[in-house]
Amino acid sequence: MDFLQQSFTVRFQYRVFFTSHLFDTSNLLLRDFLQEQAQDGAIKKLLFVIDEEVASHHPQLEQQIEEYCSAMPAYALAAIVPVTGGEEVKNSDADFQTLLDAINKCGIDRHSYVVAIGGGSVLDMAGYASAVAHRGVRHIRIPTTVLSQNDSGVGVKNSMNYFGKKNFLGTFAPPVAVFNDTHFLTTLSERDWRSGISEAVKVALIKDAAFFRWLEENAAAMMARDMDAMHYHIKRCAELHLQHIASGDPFEMGSARPLDFGHWSAHKLEQLTDFSVRHGEAVALGIALDSTYSYLSGKLDEPSLRRILSLLEALGFELMHPLLEVADAQNALLQGLTEFREHLGGRLTVTLLKEIGVGDEVHQMEPRMIIRASRWLQEYCLKEQKKDTR
Amino acid sequence: MDFLQQSFTVRFQYRVFFTSHLFDTSNLLLRDFLQEQAQDGAIKKLLFVIDEEVASHHPQLEQQIEEYCSAMPAYALAAIVPVTGGEEVKNSDADFQTLLDAINKCGIDRHSYVVAIGGGSVLDMAGYASAVAHRGVRHIRIPTTVLSQNDSGVGVKNSMNYFGKKNFLGTFAPPVAVFNDTHFLTTLSERDWRSGISEAVKVALIKDAAFFRWLEENAAAMMARDMDAMHYHIKRCAELHLQHIASGDPFEMGSARPLDFGHWSAHKLEQLTDFSVRHGEAVALGIALDSTYSYLSGKLDEPSLRRILSLLEALGFELMHPLLEVADAQNALLQGLTEFREHLGGRLTVTLLKEIGVGDEVHQMEPRMIIRASRWLQEYCLKEQKKDTR
Repeated sequence: MDFLQQSFTVRFQYRVFFTSHLFDTSNLLLRDFLQEQAQDGAIKKLLFVIDEEVASHHPQLEQQIEEYCSAMPAYALAAIVPVTGGEEVKNSDADFQTLLDAINKCGIDRHSYVVAIGGGSVLDMAGYASAVAHRGVRHIRIPTTVLSQNDSGVGVKNSMNYFGKKNFLGTFAPPVAVFNDTHFLTTLSERDWRSGISEAVKVALIKDAAFFRWLEENAAAMMARDMDAMHYHIKRCAELHLQHIASGDPFEMGSARPLDFGHWSAHKLEQLTDFSVRHGEAVALGIALDSTYSYLSGKLDEPSLRRILSLLEALGFELMHPLLEVADAQNALLQGLTEFREHLGGRLTVTLLKEIGVGDEVHQMEPRMIIRASRWLQEYCLKEQKKDTR
Repeated sequence: MDFLQQSFTVRFQYRVFFTSHLFDTSNLLLRDFLQEQAQDGAIKKLLFVIDEEVASHHPQLEQQIEEYCSAMPAYALAAIVPVTGGEEVKNSDADFQTLLDAINKCGIDRHSYVVAIGGGSVLDMAGYASAVAHRGVRHIRIPTTVLSQNDSGVGVKNSMNYFGKKNFLGTFAPPVAVFNDTHFLTTLSERDWRSGISEAVKVALIKDAAFFRWLEENAAAMMARDMDAMHYHIKRCAELHLQHIASGDPFEMGSARPLDFGHWSAHKLEQLTDFSVRHGEAVALGIALDSTYSYLSGKLDEPSLRRILSLLEALGFELMHPLLEVADAQNALLQGLTEFREHLGGRLTVTLLKEIGVGDEVHQMEPRMIIRASRWLQEYCLKEQKKDTR
């Protein structure tokens, strides 16, 4: 056989910084980071992308950014591009085209930076545009929600929705740095403050029983918007996600996706509700369903299941949704399993729970058992409601 | 400073196979490769993309592919998608959208394959679509031209043109395998047979003096369409490109692009002529210009320059083009230097020649010296013409 063998490794490194009031002129974190990168003497450009929802809560932000940049002689602020907030930014390609256009017109090259400030959806879109323009310009992420700070914003994926399918387009492209600024969390609605915490429950359940206990002990404090508790939870959750990415299969060449515990139904539920159910809320529902499935299929004991459901309730999550009431094998939600398999390909691989802190991969989920899990959860919720109204 | 450090490496491996008549049912190369990959028992899909120009020269190809695939029980032929040949496939997004649509409708997942058969442009477009659909489906390249077999098709880049700029969109995404089939070369026009050889001259000039001598000794045989000489040249050229990618900076995170010797003017010339000058032809012109510049700036000796120009002439390349007649610093071609720098970013880094086989990086090119090099080349060509007509 006549062939040449190609083989090489590529090293990826980035830091996830934790700070507050990143753009205060007295906060030198971002400035020091950028100065360290600016070694060749050429002036580098910074193109900012700002989630409109974030801008509306922080009307001074643009001016702060302008002032902050003017103090860095090795950098020039090229433009500040406002984009739609929420899932809509990924559904249409209008903002994506606007951003590509700005990258072109401003002459952003592979040594310049696109700095995106926003929730997970805005970071997904901006990360994708940054990854494909000039085969990848440098990208800095400044996640502003709980969900993006503890999970998606610190990872290596970006995406857009296409053909009505979540994340149909995207790449694996690590950012050059992530800056988690707690100040952005203070203006979150109660719903957004809560919803991202489900990703912490998820990662604790499959990887870290001690963190699960911490979440149980601090659920009330987090719900009371205790900033120290929120910060600890975000850092630990981000750390577990980062460790998983680095130790496993960062660009998902294999079939396993343990970090997607509870996600097969979550993705489908988001789509079926036209994204009116937030990702974090859908994940909480997905965790409830797959934990119940783990219990009914004999993997997880009942006290553990009850601890899981109690924690989700203590965090204010719903455990049932009309679309999760799976009555037969023709239910639309079950199509989510097929789509989940198709997105990655190969054998279906779903993570269930063996015990709190220990995941267990399976290659099949029985529709009959999913229907039973759905009924069990409906009854559980009814009983809880009665308790509450007693 | 409060931060988490992320750090990981990703290993990329693929083989570049050399064969003839890949889709003959008696040729087991592709079949054996695919069977080796099919380990988990699931049926994988194959989506073929075929360059219309190739299809017109090989009318039996579709049927051969159907027969070839029907003999692989672990694989299903999902579809055969014809696409435009040549640079046009990268200029408009029509074929790109058609391919994404086929990937979606056929349910091609991350463990299925997009197999592209065609010249460099078709492989660039199909590689890009494969890289962004589901964040990357598996991609097999079957380059059909000299240029794509010895250079672009064996590398890790893909691209589309956008905003009128060559390769504005793209990613770094190694294929899972490349199959170089010499049979496709037999139907190439004289122009396409020749033009890709300039990439071999280029890589020999910056890396391998012995290969340059081989090219001098075998130029006549290659022009007489000697298949053994063509095969040797393609394999050695592909090998030098692969070695460079693996030993250097595969995803071009730094500033240097030694493989782009002669390319700053070539890219601009292609664009200015609306791609009527082929990439390989433009590269030959770019090599002539930058070699002359290397001589005039005192790096390269005159006998070496004359050997380079003689080899290009022996291979049938033009050494001058009206757009290369640079008379002043406002010449459109010089804009190519700026665009070359902008595409990668950072400091301008251009490779010149110290001697045959040894490149030399510089960070500046003097417009005055480019004008002198252009005039020197014009005079050289005039003298050569006179010799020919004597």
